[in-house]
Amino acid sequence: MTGKTESSVLGELKEKILEQKAEIEKLKQQLKGPAKSSGGHGGHGGGDVSEEDIANYLDEPFYTTSLKRVGWLGIFLASLSFTAIIMNSFEHTLEKHIELSYFVPLLAGHGGNTGGQTIGTLLSALSAGTVQPKHAAKVIFKEALAGVLSGMILGVIVGPVAYKLMGISYHVTTVLFLTMPLLSTVAATLGATIPFVCIWFGLDPSVIAAPAMTSLVDVSGLLGYFVIANQVFKLYGLEF
Amino acid sequence: MTGKTESSVLGELKEKILEQKAEIEKLKQQLKGPAKSSGGHGGHGGGDVSEEDIANYLDEPFYTTSLKRVGWLGIFLASLSFTAIIMNSFEHTLEKHIELSYFVPLLAGHGGNTGGQTIGTLLSALSAGTVQPKHAAKVIFKEALAGVLSGMILGVIVGPVAYKLMGISYHVTTVLFLTMPLLSTVAATLGATIPFVCIWFGLDPSVIAAPAMTSLVDVSGLLGYFVIANQVFKLYGLEF
Repeated sequence: MTGKTESSVLGELKEKILEQKAEIEKLKQQLKGPAKSSGGHGGHGGGDVSEEDIANYLDEPFYTTSLKRVGWLGIFLASLSFTAIIMNSFEHTLEKHIELSYFVPLLAGHGGNTGGQTIGTLLSALSAGTVQPKHAAKVIFKEALAGVLSGMILGVIVGPVAYKLMGISYHVTTVLFLTMPLLSTVAATLGATIPFVCIWFGLDPSVIAAPAMTSLVDVSGLLGYFVIANQVFKLYGLEF
Repeated sequence: MTGKTESSVLGELKEKILEQKAEIEKLKQQLKGPAKSSGGHGGHGGGDVSEEDIANYLDEPFYTTSLKRVGWLGIFLASLSFTAIIMNSFEHTLEKHIELSYFVPLLAGHGGNTGGQTIGTLLSALSAGTVQPKHAAKVIFKEALAGVLSGMILGVIVGPVAYKLMGISYHVTTVLFLTMPLLSTVAATLGATIPFVCIWFGLDPSVIAAPAMTSLVDVSGLLGYFVIANQVFKLYGLEF
């Protein structure tokens, strides 16, 4: 081995070290990314879960945990109070058709689940980089169509079950059957839109998206339910 | 520079390269961890979001997305149908006290938000390692207490708002006021228990915990609401 080849080996090794150093930096950078975004896991319910909160969580007293969260809970409760106002304003409809009220918690829960699925997939795809803000229109359109389809499939199942097994009247079954696709579409569309809106406003979608979607879906789904009921009852010649 | 020192420099460089290689492996390993756990983001709504799903999400057609999810949605919808059965079985109560129905979507949404906050914090703490399965009892007990407190705080606010601003009757306001702490406690306790149960059964809590909690809270919260109403109406000498 001559001095010259030895020094060229040295050069190669040094280059290799620099390459590896760059890779380590890149990996460390990548590690920071997901660690931050995993802070808002299961975001439904909100509240900013900082790294410090997570580190102290086990040892902080229950009232600290509770008081930290009660503000966000209050904000979401205030937005949920619109559902009580809507129910109140359709008092006469509910009194005449008490069966309508049976499906209110079912529809609220189902809307939340449908929108939650969309948000879950979208936040993961955004954090993995396979979806970017420029894809917003495509994603929202696709999710809306996916919502129509799953709502129709489940509506076809729920309708007969309510009519045959629960003995629900034909006209309320019709309302339920028609509300399912509408609700699924609204929930999936909102679930696809809200994360992008959060990003545009510089907010963390993993904290805000799910509870904001739930509140909006509950309010708009309930309104849609009563509007559809109004039209269906008219068709059947019933009093609304 | 003698041949000997050159070869010792070579040795050092080679050692350095091996060290860096080990660090790169370690970092890659760490990257895999959080990447997996971030798959179930905002889990509400469930459905197993695999890495492959995320990679293909943008380009798969809407019906593929929809059909992948509709199974889980159907399972959660089936469990939500218990809420319709409960509402149906309290038909006479609802007919006599239609005001009770106004707060059903509000309570369902609030229960989901409270339990969702607990699950969000707990999943992050579990994934960060600051909470471990052996801490289950401590966490569940603490969350239950935190739930009582936030339910009492918000009940004190919601009661007067319903009574003064919405003109709700005194006895239904009392029911609402008493249901809030119960609901918050049940939601926070379930939100703290379900992730540990998932781990014990070898299931991924980030996918199942939130929608399972929502369904259980909706059903048990609704039952609790009617049981409290029963007792309160008896106290006021009203027909149930």
